[in-house]
Amino acid sequence: MLLTETQALEIALLREKNHSTRRPTVPELEALLFKPLPVLDHGFVRLVDYMGDDAAIVQAARVSYGRGTKKISEDRGLIHYLMRHRHSTPFEMAELKLHIKLPIFVARQWIRHRTANVNEYSARYSILDKEFYIPSPEHLAMQSSANRQGRGELLNTDKAARVLEILKSDSEKAYQHYTQLLAEGGEDSLLDTTEQKPLGLARELARINLPLNYYTQWYWKVDLHNLLHFLALRSSEQAQYEIRAYADLILNTIVKKWVPETYLAFLEHRLQAVHLSASSLSVIKRLVKGESITQTTSGLSPRAWRELMTLLEL
Amino acid sequence: MLLTETQALEIALLREKNHSTRRPTVPELEALLFKPLPVLDHGFVRLVDYMGDDAAIVQAARVSYGRGTKKISEDRGLIHYLMRHRHSTPFEMAELKLHIKLPIFVARQWIRHRTANVNEYSARYSILDKEFYIPSPEHLAMQSSANRQGRGELLNTDKAARVLEILKSDSEKAYQHYTQLLAEGGEDSLLDTTEQKPLGLARELARINLPLNYYTQWYWKVDLHNLLHFLALRSSEQAQYEIRAYADLILNTIVKKWVPETYLAFLEHRLQAVHLSASSLSVIKRLVKGESITQTTSGLSPRAWRELMTLLEL
Amino acid sequence: MLLTETQALEIALLREKNHSTRRPTVPELEALLFKPLPVLDHGFVRLVDYMGDDAAIVQAARVSYGRGTKKISEDRGLIHYLMRHRHSTPFEMAELKLHIKLPIFVARQWIRHRTANVNEYSARYSILDKEFYIPSPEHLAMQSSANRQGRGELLNTDKAARVLEILKSDSEKAYQHYTQLLAEGGEDSLLDTTEQKPLGLARELARINLPLNYYTQWYWKVDLHNLLHFLALRSSEQAQYEIRAYADLILNTIVKKWVPETYLAFLEHRLQAVHLSASSLSVIKRLVKGESITQTTSGLSPRAWRELMTLLEL
Amino acid sequence: MLLTETQALEIALLREKNHSTRRPTVPELEALLFKPLPVLDHGFVRLVDYMGDDAAIVQAARVSYGRGTKKISEDRGLIHYLMRHRHSTPFEMAELKLHIKLPIFVARQWIRHRTANVNEYSARYSILDKEFYIPSPEHLAMQSSANRQGRGELLNTDKAARVLEILKSDSEKAYQHYTQLLAEGGEDSLLDTTEQKPLGLARELARINLPLNYYTQWYWKVDLHNLLHFLALRSSEQAQYEIRAYADLILNTIVKKWVPETYLAFLEHRLQAVHLSASSLSVIKRLVKGESITQTTSGLSPRAWRELMTLLEL
Repeated sequence: MLLTETQALEIALLREKNHSTRRPTVPELEALLFKPLPVLDHGFVRLVDYMGDDAAIVQAARVSYGRGTKKISEDRGLIHYLMRHRHSTPFEMAELKLHIKLPIFVARQWIRHRTANVNEYSARYSILDKEFYIPSPEHLAMQSSANRQGRGELLNTDKAARVLEILKSDSEKAYQHYTQLLAEGGEDSLLDTTEQKPLGLARELARINLPLNYYTQWYWKVDLHNLLHFLALRSSEQAQYEIRAYADLILNTIVKKWVPETYLAFLEHRLQAVHLSASSLSVIKRLVKGESITQTTSGLSPRAWRELMTLLEL
Repeated sequence: MLLTETQALEIALLREKNHSTRRPTVPELEALLFKPLPVLDHGFVRLVDYMGDDAAIVQAARVSYGRGTKKISEDRGLIHYLMRHRHSTPFEMAELKLHIKLPIFVARQWIRHRTANVNEYSARYSILDKEFYIPSPEHLAMQSSANRQGRGELLNTDKAARVLEILKSDSEKAYQHYTQLLAEGGEDSLLDTTEQKPLGLARELARINLPLNYYTQWYWKVDLHNLLHFLALRSSEQAQYEIRAYADLILNTIVKKWVPETYLAFLEHRLQAVHLSASSLSVIKRLVKGESITQTTSGLSPRAWRELMTLLEL
Repeated sequence: MLLTETQALEIALLREKNHSTRRPTVPELEALLFKPLPVLDHGFVRLVDYMGDDAAIVQAARVSYGRGTKKISEDRGLIHYLMRHRHSTPFEMAELKLHIKLPIFVARQWIRHRTANVNEYSARYSILDKEFYIPSPEHLAMQSSANRQGRGELLNTDKAARVLEILKSDSEKAYQHYTQLLAEGGEDSLLDTTEQKPLGLARELARINLPLNYYTQWYWKVDLHNLLHFLALRSSEQAQYEIRAYADLILNTIVKKWVPETYLAFLEHRLQAVHLSASSLSVIKRLVKGESITQTTSGLSPRAWRELMTLLEL
Repeated sequence: MLLTETQALEIALLREKNHSTRRPTVPELEALLFKPLPVLDHGFVRLVDYMGDDAAIVQAARVSYGRGTKKISEDRGLIHYLMRHRHSTPFEMAELKLHIKLPIFVARQWIRHRTANVNEYSARYSILDKEFYIPSPEHLAMQSSANRQGRGELLNTDKAARVLEILKSDSEKAYQHYTQLLAEGGEDSLLDTTEQKPLGLARELARINLPLNYYTQWYWKVDLHNLLHFLALRSSEQAQYEIRAYADLILNTIVKKWVPETYLAFLEHRLQAVHLSASSLSVIKRLVKGESITQTTSGLSPRAWRELMTLLEL
């Protein structure tokens, strides 16, 4: 995530300016504006712009002529009510714009969230930087035996070292080839050994040889409702660690400062809430009445029974 | 569009406050913030919030670390290029939030534009005001004979007067019945004659008797790309006059101040541009070479020929 | 919902034809095709087309080369798994197309579901039929005192009669005026009394005097995931009775026949399932361990406590 | 694109079955169902399902009770009218479902079209096949000097050979490493040399080392309007050759058979049509009147002038 001098300067210039506005403004969020917040080894999230705050959600829900605020306690109550009853449209009235640098395999998961605006850096038009993701050893895990699409135990030190060796040398080699494929005769300054011949291949083709751990970047703009949906899915334990790292940062650094009441309501009614099937609910009703139940008498499948017992810490 | 005192006060309070922000700010647009701009007889458009400006479009197109601006002339060139080649994603990076009061029949056309966020005033929950749309005599036209879904010549004075009489008295009567349907025993303050019996019907049912010219209101938030698509369709001569009145105001008052370069590019490449079918293009090629062509030798249908001649002012 | 002879004939003709196809076909649903299924007093839902079945959902989830089916029991398990874990994309792979006749105030709620395709009958272009919705007396209720946007107790017979009288006579009068506004000199066959003068107003203006209980109609096409979301919201007790009538029919007649496994999973994991907030869950954990809890010791608000007790039938 | 025996058998089984249906059916398209149509070196497009036909578009535009067809010539006229005037909603009433195998870098461009349903093969859950895209020599081109995001002249034979050598050996090596990263101790059947140590890395991590030319696959479902928009952009000369190969196949093989009238209208009014800016139009008006114009007197920029002259073949 090292910035070039030009990039650092551009950011500094932006952060220096102050404008006067009548729009809802969140001072805590202003402090974050434009700064790259690091994620993974070379990634970042930069807050570029935002629209609205907690009160703007209330204002829209009330189709208000003014600020939407009566008392802070009433606003809080309304935000909780809207979140609990999944009235999503008022949360669509706040908007966030981020500049994100992320590995391509993360970008591929991210882009599946369709209700957002995206401008990606074009590797047909420009040349990618030499930046690739190498996991830390503490994230190098085996395939999970319980969860067919997750990670299980960590690799031992030897195996981890060997994995890193493969990833690093393949990524290095890929960039060496990328520059050779791109370089045109005469301007071979890109090439780092004299043995390589410049090939001058079109950018849109040269990039197809790069692995999925290379970084790309994009501007991503999304409304708060769709952002929370993204965060609920991508900060979950089911999500791959690498995208979770981005989701956690956005949730706990940006959203928390931006819309603190909505953040709390989101934890209470979404992130730490649970969804109970009709059958599980009926078992719970019997349990709270003191009935003694086993999996067999519960009517639940062994799996559903196990999940319910875990949930209830029984 | 008369505001209540409370509403006027709420707006005044909002307009008094000034905040300091690092976000892109458009002073000309700030001046408009929160003020109701009148449309039709009781409608309005109020600018509630905005995100981005011309430079923000350029910034996103370049996936920039800074402002996106190199020179103003370069920015202008890029915006024209993006508009001409229908690169829509950078225009999605600017966002507008409006509070709109509009007749229900206009709202029904408006809502067909799906890529936007909407919070409508709920007549299940609240009571509608006595505000209905009555066209001015200069908009009372006959069915067009040329265009099966448009207006033709104006009605004569007598007929216009009779139309207005029907519309006004039916609208008045409808509100009288609405209040009677709603009013509960004891709190008949809503009723304006003592003969009416309070009926206490649920709000969600009482409203179904109101005609489509009654006003509703909503918060509407949309990105600039989708806004321009809306404006291209709804400021067109094919659009019904009443929605065109809103589109014209948003385009020529709000968009023009907000993103002046984009506004000019939109006029040049969309609003005043034309779309030529393959066959029409081939006729034009022959015409500019000096060939003399008639409808018969053109290969066009009589209708397509007529449209082309009109377009070329021949 | 009386069809004209032409309409009935057109439908009969469509139902007579049989084609040979390799596409997934659901015989029980074929039996319903094109027939108007009545809703409310003049509305209907007509199944026009469908794509996919339960197996097509499995097929997409597995990105399969064949039918997707291994054993029926495995398919069922996968569909339940997908529904429980809110993996929505496979359910997007089935699609339904309906022709619906519905009151305008219902259409206004319906259209808020944006992820669907809609073609509405145009009253700018064509003349609306004289069909309006009059509630049955058993649906004429007072405003609820508990729920600010719902119905409470039924109106007494006298009041109900008076309400119906108002609704009917206003609706009748509105159509009389509609025809007068539309009618042009010479072709006043639309007018039912000789006193009315033909006014020849454009259709797009004449319709604005009609009340919201008039029927409109549209083609509506939606994928199964978005349909289920619509049905979850609109078949709920929170929904207005009139739209619920449509949702219930679509769910229990069409969806049930079309995708029976998905239907069962939807009941278990969505319709009859519950969402528990973090705080409610922690109270339940204490309850099943036998702890004795009151609202005060629960940490819940009085309202949340009441809702939880109702849910657990305590 | 070699299918496994199981896959070929599954497809054959699907193609054998015939069902009876009342739904609109297109015999020419039925013939294509389920067969993989080859694209690039290992890719394919398989038609999995479809909904509607030309008449279904007309039917929806008319909100018809029957087939929508009056006379074939009227249907054709209406389809052309809808396409010319960009009335898009009737085209949304037809739907296509495809199974597509495509290189990841193509998938990344494809997925930017958001209004579609997608189920992708999961490399977190399953192991990718050893299939990667190697361009044919006649597609190995240099960066264009005119178009900053396109291809220019072909590479000479020597350079092309060297490019292919790099791409092939890197792709081979990547798969060798992929299998080593995945393989667990004991089940090293995946490994092709005895020197490699099985590492047992989680699938979601092992895949990040694969290059972007590896193939993925997905089910993709889209309505005809959005499909045509995709095809207009992706069959254009501005599109990268590899995605254009898919777009061309879908347009000229599938769409052409499926909705032949719409196909013709699409060529006439979109694909071979042109968009003229306000300024270009005014130049054309002067030209057809016989005025003699140069770039200087045209008021156009040199670039716009050049483009217009090319368009008019002057």
